[in-house]
Amino acid sequence: MLSKAKIKYIQSLHQKKNRQKERVFIAEGVKIVEEILNQNQFKVHSLLATESWINKSITISNKYKGKLTRIHSKELKKISTLKNPKEILALVEFSNTSAAPSVTETSLNLVLENIQDPGNMGTIIRIADWFGIANIFCSEGCVDVYNSKVIQATMGSFLRVTVNYTNLEQLFKSHSKIPVYGAVLGGMDIYKTELTEPGFLLIGNEGKGLSHPIQKYISKKITIPKQGAAESLNAAVATGILCSCFKRK
Amino acid sequence: MLSKAKIKYIQSLHQKKNRQKERVFIAEGVKIVEEILNQNQFKVHSLLATESWINKSITISNKYKGKLTRIHSKELKKISTLKNPKEILALVEFSNTSAAPSVTETSLNLVLENIQDPGNMGTIIRIADWFGIANIFCSEGCVDVYNSKVIQATMGSFLRVTVNYTNLEQLFKSHSKIPVYGAVLGGMDIYKTELTEPGFLLIGNEGKGLSHPIQKYISKKITIPKQGAAESLNAAVATGILCSCFKRK
Repeated sequence: MLSKAKIKYIQSLHQKKNRQKERVFIAEGVKIVEEILNQNQFKVHSLLATESWINKSITISNKYKGKLTRIHSKELKKISTLKNPKEILALVEFSNTSAAPSVTETSLNLVLENIQDPGNMGTIIRIADWFGIANIFCSEGCVDVYNSKVIQATMGSFLRVTVNYTNLEQLFKSHSKIPVYGAVLGGMDIYKTELTEPGFLLIGNEGKGLSHPIQKYISKKITIPKQGAAESLNAAVATGILCSCFKRK
Repeated sequence: MLSKAKIKYIQSLHQKKNRQKERVFIAEGVKIVEEILNQNQFKVHSLLATESWINKSITISNKYKGKLTRIHSKELKKISTLKNPKEILALVEFSNTSAAPSVTETSLNLVLENIQDPGNMGTIIRIADWFGIANIFCSEGCVDVYNSKVIQATMGSFLRVTVNYTNLEQLFKSHSKIPVYGAVLGGMDIYKTELTEPGFLLIGNEGKGLSHPIQKYISKKITIPKQGAAESLNAAVATGILCSCFKRK
């Protein structure tokens, strides 16, 4: 049974400003929560689970007894960020790796400017994890990585890929020897462009693409050639195709 | 002002069985609705728009006066399928192209087995439209193309790509000369596989991949090589990368 105060507290974590104040975020669903329990970088603060999950997961439930609260599915609905809540919700502390991730000087770094859609952001983190890209650099205008929809869409990949919010112009200025590949419409055919690593692969906002100020840091403007009529590709799909082109060597 | 009966009718179209009975679906948002109004294949049955849209779009509003109902944003919230409704919602009649789309004997055909997520389905339709793939064949277990979240995610590409629900085993049996490339984990390295057209590119369910019965129709099992730790890629991202590999020749 959850107190009103606890419900209110968890609901407050649906908002970025409260997550940042408390340094706690929400993760939902059996698979992601179990993955979080199986690593050391992120500490679980509390687990809230329905009877159905507890009955299925007796070993884990016993191990985390002190942190586990049994709740009714009606209570879960109140605190969940999902339309169809799963059986378990975890409150997880922010990672304490305080040092900013360093730019990889030997391979590809992913850079995102103002990616807004949580599903896209999570999917891009999953793409990075698939292709072995360790670092993602995000402009401050990107959606919060601790948004629960982002966490959900990463399918656990946020545990392995470091996401750093930073000033992109500063980033490029202080690594001016590393070429910046910017994804634009009407750039060079990606299939015919020499793709070298180390490199920054720069992806822009879903609707607006890359901003004017950032475009001046681009060394090569690249494009996935269009053979049909769609105006554009989804940002995460484009990122996946471009990463694949870099990594096929 | 909307009558209670009209609100109930539109809400009923949130469900597949009612869409199929009425042969009408919902499309939302300025961009998609305006694209629908600019083509002939799909007929708009009625438009429901807030004052803000009408004031901005006087020419279109006048042209479709007979079909247009001015509604309050509170009413829009009641009939919308979106969490954050846009300014306009259209009821659109199913396309009357009754003939089943024919298999392309010269290039790539996309085949989906049990794709469940509306966002993925819409994004895949958009990918097909980008790469000039005219036909998608779906197993009956795929999400309905007229689901409003699918329509939304296509960004208008459903107007140009034909999606056909069919028995996939029958499809492969009756086109046994066309090779079937099946996306699996642990198949041949896609970068080292000769990709020929015509071909079927077969993509499986988000969680379960391709079913056993369908796997026996595969000519070549293909995989995007993994260099990191993610268990899998998002289905739409994988589809995008595979289509790009076919089309880069």
